[in-house]
Amino acid sequence: MREIPGIPYQFDNPALLALALVHRSAGKVNNERLEFLGDSILSAAVSARLYELKPDNDEGELSRLRARVVRGDTLAILAAELKLGDYITLGEGEMKSGGFNRDSILADALEAVLGAIYLDGGYESCAAVILQICAPVISSLPSASELKDPKTRLQEWLQGRGYGLPEYSLQSEQGPSHRKQFRVQCSQAVAGVRVTGDGGSRQKAEQAAAAAALEVIADKFGK
Amino acid sequence: MREIPGIPYQFDNPALLALALVHRSAGKVNNERLEFLGDSILSAAVSARLYELKPDNDEGELSRLRARVVRGDTLAILAAELKLGDYITLGEGEMKSGGFNRDSILADALEAVLGAIYLDGGYESCAAVILQICAPVISSLPSASELKDPKTRLQEWLQGRGYGLPEYSLQSEQGPSHRKQFRVQCSQAVAGVRVTGDGGSRQKAEQAAAAAALEVIADKFGK
Repeated sequence: MREIPGIPYQFDNPALLALALVHRSAGKVNNERLEFLGDSILSAAVSARLYELKPDNDEGELSRLRARVVRGDTLAILAAELKLGDYITLGEGEMKSGGFNRDSILADALEAVLGAIYLDGGYESCAAVILQICAPVISSLPSASELKDPKTRLQEWLQGRGYGLPEYSLQSEQGPSHRKQFRVQCSQAVAGVRVTGDGGSRQKAEQAAAAAALEVIADKFGK
Repeated sequence: MREIPGIPYQFDNPALLALALVHRSAGKVNNERLEFLGDSILSAAVSARLYELKPDNDEGELSRLRARVVRGDTLAILAAELKLGDYITLGEGEMKSGGFNRDSILADALEAVLGAIYLDGGYESCAAVILQICAPVISSLPSASELKDPKTRLQEWLQGRGYGLPEYSLQSEQGPSHRKQFRVQCSQAVAGVRVTGDGGSRQKAEQAAAAAALEVIADKFGK
């Protein structure tokens, strides 16, 4: 087998593709080393794409965006769409327990296939495959402003329109000490905002209150 | 400036190199995004090199080897050897407090320079620079067998020569409960090994005893 339908790459060396599809349950020679390799090439290619695509995000935001693309559950969805499970070689135990549908096995195999493509065709070929496979995920990533936390966004909105800073005040603290619930009020008198938010910490309750304030603002001012 | 002495790369676009050398203390436009990029290219290039150089290491060992190369204190040493601190632009506060010698600033700037090389010359150029700069570190990495823990190595040595398994027995437990010291004896009668090891946990004491046993064996059998 020289290719997998849906992955736009044809192998010169089909043994590399075969190895990438051998789960560790099937034997000592398996795809785990290729997975190590593919994981790092994936991360580099996605990082480079995000760098050029997201000039307004700082490095912390870029890291969080990258994590959304390369994390296991995202890769498992991509692998399932490629029906990678149909091609994976599993040990008997894994086969009986339906391992070819398990998220981690699918995600790992996809990384291993990417590692195999890197070895077979080099970085640029592999990066092109990665960007094509991940394009739907990358294009649905949130914008720079959507990534910011609600308190930051609320403050920026208010300041950008000449309003003062919002005020946060603790309204109540309830429940046993290991499971306390906080309620915080967020208000900005001039903008006519007064809402509350709940959370398991004061900080979380403040964020929830800020998120509620942003909704009020969106309704009131059409954002 | 188109290059830094010791880094085998000449920039087409010197603005990229200049940006890579601006620490965040010097302003809002700084090297942090380039650092994000360089970090991931560094990891990919080192992963690919280790994959080909270390066929006997499994993916867990490859990860640990990679961590030794790309971790901050390794990069800081490499950056200091390149005298990167001489070229970094710092804010006034950092300059006064000697920031150009701070490990994290040096390591981050080196990653940023690598990110700039990637943007200027592409992946292959950047990987070549990375492998040249990191060559001394990579060539001094431990071998596959050295990476294994002493208990595993001892067991493999004994089994490989038809001896039985070693026995570990707790000899003593001393000190207050939050700072207990354990002493464990490791013995294998047929091979004529009987040594002790100390540690802050039983497991650590067993590893220390196994390491001592390996030394006895090396003396006795010339390993």
